[in-house]
Amino acid sequence: MVVVINQAPKIKKAIEGAKKILIVSHQKPDGDTLGSASALLAYLKSQNRDCLGFCVSPVPQNYNYLPHMDSFTTSRQTAKNFNPDLTMVVDSGDLDYAGAKDVVTSILEPHILVNIDHHKTNTGFGDINCVDVEAASTTEIVLRLFQQMGIKVSDEMAVGCLTGIITDTNSFTNPNTRAETLNSAGDLLSAGATITTVNNQLIKNKDLKTLKVWGKILSRLTYDPETKMASTAVFLSDLDEAQIDDEAVDGVANFLNSLGDVKVALVLKEMPGGMVKGSFRTNDDFTDVSELAKLLGGGGHKKAAGFSLPGKITQTQAGWQVVSN
Amino acid sequence: MVVVINQAPKIKKAIEGAKKILIVSHQKPDGDTLGSASALLAYLKSQNRDCLGFCVSPVPQNYNYLPHMDSFTTSRQTAKNFNPDLTMVVDSGDLDYAGAKDVVTSILEPHILVNIDHHKTNTGFGDINCVDVEAASTTEIVLRLFQQMGIKVSDEMAVGCLTGIITDTNSFTNPNTRAETLNSAGDLLSAGATITTVNNQLIKNKDLKTLKVWGKILSRLTYDPETKMASTAVFLSDLDEAQIDDEAVDGVANFLNSLGDVKVALVLKEMPGGMVKGSFRTNDDFTDVSELAKLLGGGGHKKAAGFSLPGKITQTQAGWQVVSN
Repeated sequence: MVVVINQAPKIKKAIEGAKKILIVSHQKPDGDTLGSASALLAYLKSQNRDCLGFCVSPVPQNYNYLPHMDSFTTSRQTAKNFNPDLTMVVDSGDLDYAGAKDVVTSILEPHILVNIDHHKTNTGFGDINCVDVEAASTTEIVLRLFQQMGIKVSDEMAVGCLTGIITDTNSFTNPNTRAETLNSAGDLLSAGATITTVNNQLIKNKDLKTLKVWGKILSRLTYDPETKMASTAVFLSDLDEAQIDDEAVDGVANFLNSLGDVKVALVLKEMPGGMVKGSFRTNDDFTDVSELAKLLGGGGHKKAAGFSLPGKITQTQAGWQVVSN
Repeated sequence: MVVVINQAPKIKKAIEGAKKILIVSHQKPDGDTLGSASALLAYLKSQNRDCLGFCVSPVPQNYNYLPHMDSFTTSRQTAKNFNPDLTMVVDSGDLDYAGAKDVVTSILEPHILVNIDHHKTNTGFGDINCVDVEAASTTEIVLRLFQQMGIKVSDEMAVGCLTGIITDTNSFTNPNTRAETLNSAGDLLSAGATITTVNNQLIKNKDLKTLKVWGKILSRLTYDPETKMASTAVFLSDLDEAQIDDEAVDGVANFLNSLGDVKVALVLKEMPGGMVKGSFRTNDDFTDVSELAKLLGGGGHKKAAGFSLPGKITQTQAGWQVVSN
């Protein structure tokens, strides 16, 4: 773990000295990595700098409200041909997670690699590492960098930074929400971002058929008082009937955290080919669901983990379970 | 409408000069009125002042984590016998809404009535009126009063103030969330409140049987593309089977605000005696659901309103509707 947080002077110098700047968001991007990239691109473009965004996965449609999403390429070749002398990787613990290892390692010298992140597992892979594991989001660090560099935060930069904070704190409800997080969000509203812009995209993005399937899934909830585990099941037929894909119900596992006397929530999802995907969630400080997932051949984080098993979903007295075919 | 916000010096003087201080929370209390009262009681008790809380309705159990809820009486006689020379009414547009008109008007002179509120409809009923309709919550005003009076905010005062902000902004998702709101919440975390303390009580307070009924209700969602109204129904049998009361499903109407292309959400609820209760919600800036509710003999606010009609709930092509018996 690397904790080097006061890197503003070095990063400022690196930006000032660079001719071409590549901003890398991690694969399967979320609001924090895209918000960080958006804010940095907004700043660089306001300075008429030659810059490019790179993410191996396409930007999901619901993030299109973020400024400069059209400056992203998913093409490794385009990123390599851009031949940056400064690359800034945001919200990635390592270059594999970023999905950009081959691109970054193929860049010709002289080149500076900047690593801005808040993951505990960050390997310190940059030439300059700006990692603060206490920050709720990487955008919180990006905002602080702007402030330390004396850069006025524009409304475009603000909406990117606010997006990362709202995504990674689950709208200020997760325990990682600190005083600094709320004060940063306040500063971003003062700079021109609005809560509704972000929420309308990230929260008010459900459609009726999705919410009806959520309803079906919730009505199937079971609870095992012995293990304090709440579990429920999603069947392929649910998704087929409603013509939605399985990602549309990903939020159910998080939503189950609103249950009071539940230590662990488990959502089992039928996948094509006789597989079952399981998602564990916990809000309990003393429970590590990644250990549970490991027992089933999966993995993940302490508060959110998952696994994938061949089999089918059945209901028992203790709840929904996977049994092998 | 009364907007008099810089009343800290007058209120400070009134508190300093008072022998007995009554704090009034409005009937059917929510997190803002109770949080405001809790914060004021916490301050007054830290100063060893003779004070009492009054609310005609009992404090709901899930607010028992708020400091000094045991200092509340629901007895009008006890409040009258207390014979305060200073009464502070929090989060009430008028004394009728507070449910304390007879108590306050029966207090013997000399007596000062302080009115701290953020409702647009506030009548300015106090001797001192501290009303800021821009504030997201009354606790935001209470916090500012403490700061203007030079009072150090303790952790007990902070948890009360944070509760009101989280309740009235729906966890910082409603459009009333301003920069000041977030900065105030940040200050409250610095003063010792934690997001988890409040969220565990206010968000993580659902039980399994309630969430299963939520599921049933969501699975019944219908949408009328012409009016852009989403509607659903709650039947007495749902509540009877799960042995929960109708308040347990009150949150569904707010939850429907997570729908994207919906202007108005309507939840119809069967009540005993052949009545149907309807709850309208909107997040649309140009829709005033109180006008819709008025057409049906009800009323309320622009963003949340309701009505009550004799009849039964039936499903039509356009959605769920009330038809007379």
